[in-house]
Amino acid sequence: MPPAEARAAFRAGRRVPTAGFSAGYAQANLLCLPRADAYDFLVFAQRNPKSCPVLEVTEPGAVAAPTFDGDLRTDLPAYRVYRHGELVEERTDVTDLWRADLVSFLIGCSFTFEAALLADEVPVRHVEDGGNVPMYRTSRACRSAGALSGPLVVSMRPIPAEQVADAVRITSRYPAVHGAPVHVGAPEQLGITDLAVPDFGDPVGIRPGEVPVFWACGVTPQAAVMQSAPDFAIGHAPGHMAITDARDAQFQVP
Amino acid sequence: MPPAEARAAFRAGRRVPTAGFSAGYAQANLLCLPRADAYDFLVFAQRNPKSCPVLEVTEPGAVAAPTFDGDLRTDLPAYRVYRHGELVEERTDVTDLWRADLVSFLIGCSFTFEAALLADEVPVRHVEDGGNVPMYRTSRACRSAGALSGPLVVSMRPIPAEQVADAVRITSRYPAVHGAPVHVGAPEQLGITDLAVPDFGDPVGIRPGEVPVFWACGVTPQAAVMQSAPDFAIGHAPGHMAITDARDAQFQVP
Repeated sequence: MPPAEARAAFRAGRRVPTAGFSAGYAQANLLCLPRADAYDFLVFAQRNPKSCPVLEVTEPGAVAAPTFDGDLRTDLPAYRVYRHGELVEERTDVTDLWRADLVSFLIGCSFTFEAALLADEVPVRHVEDGGNVPMYRTSRACRSAGALSGPLVVSMRPIPAEQVADAVRITSRYPAVHGAPVHVGAPEQLGITDLAVPDFGDPVGIRPGEVPVFWACGVTPQAAVMQSAPDFAIGHAPGHMAITDARDAQFQVP
Repeated sequence: MPPAEARAAFRAGRRVPTAGFSAGYAQANLLCLPRADAYDFLVFAQRNPKSCPVLEVTEPGAVAAPTFDGDLRTDLPAYRVYRHGELVEERTDVTDLWRADLVSFLIGCSFTFEAALLADEVPVRHVEDGGNVPMYRTSRACRSAGALSGPLVVSMRPIPAEQVADAVRITSRYPAVHGAPVHVGAPEQLGITDLAVPDFGDPVGIRPGEVPVFWACGVTPQAAVMQSAPDFAIGHAPGHMAITDARDAQFQVP
């Protein structure tokens, strides 16, 4: 399904996680903030590039961008609305909440490197399960910027021990979509006490001989919003991403 | 010479291009702008990541940063001062021009990948010559952001034809310091009419069988300052970089 078609389906009200949609095209995390808060977020993103790799910044009020030829208010399957740091609503259309001063940030998503993992036969459990990737708030603080601070959020994929090096090598080629893992094994060092209870997404099983591998996650900006409590923010619902017109291959180095 | 020692020498007044200083440590382009202009620059950098890879953003007024344990007002060998887009002065100390609202941006520098080129015996002509890399304003416009617009500036290295692929492969592993070339051969397509007359730095000879290879250059932000004319800005003098405490190796992927 090409990106324009997927976006049209979501605009028409289809509400579904986007994993596996529009293969070959990059999916992105969304964060919309008033212009008054946007500088702090850009500095926050620069200081935390593994969790917040910014792919696009719109003009204030704009609902499209060169890499997103759609309508950011309607073309994601689901949104989360925050007021003063509280998640107040989840909905499929934010048109009536839109403001002329809202700046939208599209932030790289690890779905891009999952295709590369699968192409080398590195298993991706939540894709096998047909679910959402498990995500965890960690005990690690991001570097703060102005009024914005918050914990690092990670996604986790169980990888067979003999393929951990492959998973590192492959994902490190995609720095604009979180890149190499931030942690391999030892979840307790990240303050994660129970892998079976993720903070976002669905739990996955870890089989004997598999190691939990952790990547920085694009939900980190929303965790910063919850901790720092700007007046107003909109994000995507975890796993319900913006499907862009940018090709995954564009983000591969070398 | 460790970074702290090099910075002390420059602080004491030594005025010399920094190529070859503090091997293994990243050098950086500097741009200082009033906070009121800093948002536009961060968006400009996000939209032009090959020429403006931001490594660090300081707090307003700050003269140091986690990756620069020195004094940004004195520890570069030379600075350029701009008022309303005009280069009004070049000097070795900007302490008396400093303002509490100045935000400093440290921007990746291609000197980092030159060490990797040399390690694989890809020649780097201006290093052989002991001069500054030749840099050219191109006819290509950067993507603009708010009040900031300007041409892409490139650096050029002549590479033997049989090593061009190596040069691409090696430099593409360093996206945070300009990464892969933006152009290989055909300078006229970039609007460069005479390679012997660079806009910044020193000309270098191109030998038979060599191809001019062009990388996005960290002088691009200063070209944007000259075109867009913010009230006040400070940059490094081309080739006279900020020597940081960050290791070159930190910027290598995969």
